[in-house]
Amino acid sequence: MPAPTLPKALAFDVFGTVVDWRTSIACESAAYLAEIGHGECDAAGFADAWRKQYIAAMIGMRKSGRDFVPLDVLHREMLETTLQAHGFDPAALPEPLLADWNRAWHRLDPWPDAVEGLTRLKARFPIVTLSNGNIALLLALARHGRLPWDAILGAEVSGAYKPDPRAYLHTAELLGLASGELCLVAAHHGDLVGARACGLMGAYVDRPDEYGGAPAPDAAYAQTWEWSASSLIDLADQLGC
Amino acid sequence: MPAPTLPKALAFDVFGTVVDWRTSIACESAAYLAEIGHGECDAAGFADAWRKQYIAAMIGMRKSGRDFVPLDVLHREMLETTLQAHGFDPAALPEPLLADWNRAWHRLDPWPDAVEGLTRLKARFPIVTLSNGNIALLLALARHGRLPWDAILGAEVSGAYKPDPRAYLHTAELLGLASGELCLVAAHHGDLVGARACGLMGAYVDRPDEYGGAPAPDAAYAQTWEWSASSLIDLADQLGC
Repeated sequence: MPAPTLPKALAFDVFGTVVDWRTSIACESAAYLAEIGHGECDAAGFADAWRKQYIAAMIGMRKSGRDFVPLDVLHREMLETTLQAHGFDPAALPEPLLADWNRAWHRLDPWPDAVEGLTRLKARFPIVTLSNGNIALLLALARHGRLPWDAILGAEVSGAYKPDPRAYLHTAELLGLASGELCLVAAHHGDLVGARACGLMGAYVDRPDEYGGAPAPDAAYAQTWEWSASSLIDLADQLGC
Repeated sequence: MPAPTLPKALAFDVFGTVVDWRTSIACESAAYLAEIGHGECDAAGFADAWRKQYIAAMIGMRKSGRDFVPLDVLHREMLETTLQAHGFDPAALPEPLLADWNRAWHRLDPWPDAVEGLTRLKARFPIVTLSNGNIALLLALARHGRLPWDAILGAEVSGAYKPDPRAYLHTAELLGLASGELCLVAAHHGDLVGARACGLMGAYVDRPDEYGGAPAPDAAYAQTWEWSASSLIDLADQLGC
């Protein structure tokens, strides 16, 4: 296969691709579970259960025709559902504790290669987010992890959650690019399928530890992408940065 | 007057406050005017005439009920009007030349204090744009001038041009802040009036050279703001950064 034309900008999925949501959410949840007297609860399992509702929430948003709401709001609803599924009554817990717990999503640590990889990629390409996270959340993550984004774009700016085509197409439009000039960088084949359907290029980044070693829920969507990398540093190497 | 409470984030006007549009537009226009055989034309006057239509365009957008269009599009319309007012027929000029000339707004140089001032302010506060410039333009300016924004917000994200209250209020909302927790930093009293009417705090930055020494068109709106600074470095000093 001939080398693909280089993109004019890179748009990044964030949860799982740039930041390690599972380790951070498990670590913080362990502390909150201990605080509510359930230190015996499996915190990594709690993190998985919280995140597992995410895809269902995206589908639910679309099916129900519910107006766009920021991911912070959905995360809070999912936290309460997860607590209930574990036999805890969220209504009996202090509001500040629930609010702090939900804000754990604002404090996710980057994967070890993320800052160096993004910094190198930024030297050659504009780098923007194309995430389902809301702006306040992504801004907090960037400040927490020193992620050097050129701009924070994605679901909230476009009013639609990936894999809705509007999320991909509007991001390209805001950058003044044709969709084929933009490349999505993501650790998720399902996300890359959505981007390819809109004409974007795709760069897959392998994150075997995203689910603690368990297989990714969208592994069946795997296909050959324009680039495939083992880290953002490897992607920078491949793109000549 | 007691010292005001510190804001939780700073939102910046960009044209005139962070970048020196007049020097850059005059310099680039001098080259384009020479290229079309009118090197005798006063390039600074051309820049002033181009920019002067900006306020009229904002008012026109609102009065006409025209759907939101990115500032790049308005700049192009204003360029053609400015050319006509100088006796030149834009339809007789090559399209790539007009497109390049219009993109001079993507290559404005920062004021000399801007990068140091923003970098210091960013260490303590989230710093975002609250500009009427569109995202592609502001992203290009940031890469051109190494402006370290946390996020690019403003008219295009909010779908409304300042001083429409939606531009100020929606920016605070996206940041998860009450309007009184956000401070607009601007060199323009008119902009600060709009922000104050929405409950934002205001920091005035004096830019006596914005109009080449001529008085600012909104000088009559001057009032006492929460902060008043001679540069972004001075503002960083005042905010303890």
